[in-house]
Amino acid sequence: MSIVSTVLAVASDTASSHQLETAETLIAAARFFVIFLAARALAEGMVRLRLPTILGELVAGILIGLSGLHLILPPETQAEVSGWFLGLLGSLAHVGPDVVRDVYIETFPNLQSVGTIGLFALLFLTGLECELDELMAVGLQAGGVALTGVLLPLTLGTLGLLWIFHVPLIAAVFAGATMTATSIGITASVFGELKVLRSREGQIVIGAAVLDDILGIVLLAVVVSLAGSGSVALQPILRLVLAAVAFVAVSLLLSRRAAPLFDAVLDRLQAPGDVVVAAFLVLCLSCFSAQAVGLEAALGAFAAGLILSGSRHAHAMEEAIKPLVALFATVFFVVIGTTMDLSVLNPLVPENRQGLVLAVFLLSVASITKLAAGWTYRMAEPTNRLVVGLGMLPRGEVGLIFLGLGAQAGVLDPSLEAGVLVMVIGTTFLAPVLLRLVLSRQSLPSAPATAG
Amino acid sequence: MSIVSTVLAVASDTASSHQLETAETLIAAARFFVIFLAARALAEGMVRLRLPTILGELVAGILIGLSGLHLILPPETQAEVSGWFLGLLGSLAHVGPDVVRDVYIETFPNLQSVGTIGLFALLFLTGLECELDELMAVGLQAGGVALTGVLLPLTLGTLGLLWIFHVPLIAAVFAGATMTATSIGITASVFGELKVLRSREGQIVIGAAVLDDILGIVLLAVVVSLAGSGSVALQPILRLVLAAVAFVAVSLLLSRRAAPLFDAVLDRLQAPGDVVVAAFLVLCLSCFSAQAVGLEAALGAFAAGLILSGSRHAHAMEEAIKPLVALFATVFFVVIGTTMDLSVLNPLVPENRQGLVLAVFLLSVASITKLAAGWTYRMAEPTNRLVVGLGMLPRGEVGLIFLGLGAQAGVLDPSLEAGVLVMVIGTTFLAPVLLRLVLSRQSLPSAPATAG
Repeated sequence: MSIVSTVLAVASDTASSHQLETAETLIAAARFFVIFLAARALAEGMVRLRLPTILGELVAGILIGLSGLHLILPPETQAEVSGWFLGLLGSLAHVGPDVVRDVYIETFPNLQSVGTIGLFALLFLTGLECELDELMAVGLQAGGVALTGVLLPLTLGTLGLLWIFHVPLIAAVFAGATMTATSIGITASVFGELKVLRSREGQIVIGAAVLDDILGIVLLAVVVSLAGSGSVALQPILRLVLAAVAFVAVSLLLSRRAAPLFDAVLDRLQAPGDVVVAAFLVLCLSCFSAQAVGLEAALGAFAAGLILSGSRHAHAMEEAIKPLVALFATVFFVVIGTTMDLSVLNPLVPENRQGLVLAVFLLSVASITKLAAGWTYRMAEPTNRLVVGLGMLPRGEVGLIFLGLGAQAGVLDPSLEAGVLVMVIGTTFLAPVLLRLVLSRQSLPSAPATAG
Repeated sequence: MSIVSTVLAVASDTASSHQLETAETLIAAARFFVIFLAARALAEGMVRLRLPTILGELVAGILIGLSGLHLILPPETQAEVSGWFLGLLGSLAHVGPDVVRDVYIETFPNLQSVGTIGLFALLFLTGLECELDELMAVGLQAGGVALTGVLLPLTLGTLGLLWIFHVPLIAAVFAGATMTATSIGITASVFGELKVLRSREGQIVIGAAVLDDILGIVLLAVVVSLAGSGSVALQPILRLVLAAVAFVAVSLLLSRRAAPLFDAVLDRLQAPGDVVVAAFLVLCLSCFSAQAVGLEAALGAFAAGLILSGSRHAHAMEEAIKPLVALFATVFFVVIGTTMDLSVLNPLVPENRQGLVLAVFLLSVASITKLAAGWTYRMAEPTNRLVVGLGMLPRGEVGLIFLGLGAQAGVLDPSLEAGVLVMVIGTTFLAPVLLRLVLSRQSLPSAPATAG
């Protein structure tokens, strides 16, 4: 007896279990095909415009989702999948469009769970690639930049949303928290392209971005739990913050102590696929532990990467995880795009004006506060503070992960969701463009040690 | 609004959506952990016994599933998941065991869909690794061995089940078909270990195994469709066989013609992850096409690999797909093991006697017919026909894929399912053991061209 046919037993006396399985396979293959085709086409476009590919994946989702062709639609959007798409799939599976729609909705969680695996694989990879030793060299400067870059947007964003826009407390804190992250990946690739990755500015920004990731994911674990419980009493917040800090501290400790043990076990394994399976076991255990102590599994995934970053096999793990990320994290980002309702940003509709003002507010706070962080460190040697500030700007995938988990937890209303999306897209777009502009006019006071 | 909370809205007014999400994450992490830990431990054991690792994955599934600890249980088994396991997860998520059980059942399809992705990735890899040019060199001999090795067990198995055991027609054809496959992977690794991969016998067996895979998957596509429609009229069978043969013929043609086109497109892609995403797009398209013309998506996955085996990037694709297979095909094989009810093989229960006789019958037919295939080719040079026959013996992963899809389609009753399992495990276990025994006593008449 097939899974779907069991679930749909009531809804579909008209279709045989074989027809339902055929419909299920056709829908799954068609959804993956549409997602990867759109994401790939847009990502290739972004590469040619020298913009981050993640923008392409997001725009791809917008184009095929709720604000576009209605081909990929998570059931929680409550919208209708394109009639011609369902009709085509139905005629190939020899069932009616109603049955196809039921199977489409019923099997959507399978797609989302694949996206979640991609998200955790990406967070694991981010933790794995953290160069903790390099961080130590610029620790003091990076620490100042990271702390300002987290606290300023969180405070100003939350207070502004509360006082100016009268957003509910939890939603305001959540939106404020989405502005704290800095995307290591995007900053590192732009700095690398401009050959300033090894400059003092580059090292400070990358160090600060790593710290930002740690602070941001701790914050995420706290804020999502708050959103889940629905209350903002001081005691649970303190408990969560302490738990999250302890979790990261233990992970950092384990990356020194447990990694050699992990290597010793791995060296004894002989069956094929040992590296990726061993990494996955640590990932599952860490996600389980984080969730079991009331934090987010996302923090566990990142912590698992941190723990194994000390392993001799870290590079082999990166290589094994990358194809998984290329496939499944793409699903996660595209699906976020599909849920976005851009019609709330249409300036021709009078009710949308406040939402637009809100989007502009979020983008401005997110940009100004991160730029300001460039002026918050002390260093004897001259550095270009504007370059540091701009380097902190892109929110990229970390901002999107916040947005995706916030949308899942149902804390953000459509206009706030669209505002956060504009903020993430805006900063991710502006950072590389402005950095290229600034660096083409001024050379850095610190000569690069080696070309990035 | 979370996915699970929407689905379970009715069943669980007592638990908040945050608690349900926590339970969902804990269950998913715990299930993956149990599956990978058991599979890895048993696979490592098998490697040390010099037996195929797939036996370990299967035994792991049996140990944690219906015939063992009841930790991983597909809902279609109708059995109860271990109470202490649900209780532990429930206490960590702060929900009752009933809610955990509901979430466990509701989210099991997510795990199965991940296993299906692993299965398709494995079939894609098998197609990709087909050395079509090497096949041509031993084409005539391999063709004879493959054809006998498919037709003999199919005919004798089906007729025996019909006449001796009075099994229904479709189930008999299905069980007969499960005996046709030969596992390339297992045979190649045993021959490689014994340094006879490049001998005449090795080349004939590998060639025949490749042909067997093609014939077997064509047969699978036909038999599963028959099982789905529930009738065995001649016309649909002919139509399906023709469609399947045409599908494979087009794929073989495309592997010469379309692969250069694919390479040209791939050379123009610049965004990261291009190889794996491009391969996945072809895979989706091929699975969709196969299913759309009424065949199995599994045939499409294998054909996609055949098509891309002509690409210059075939090796890069193999490397990118392997970690996916190591993770997710393992889920597929372990889950097959979890559904197996070994109590029907308990010889102390009188009603089980016929099932045991049936298992012995299947194992004997499967062994004798494949051994006989070793005497069905003509060759001027002397060859060791016993080695060829033994090389054709292991059913391995292809037999399991048949079994898994047959169980899903609900054609096999528990005792027939257990009988097929015994046949797959038995042949996969016997082949390496007997091959080592024979080759330690006799040397091959054909000296190896190069050590495998």
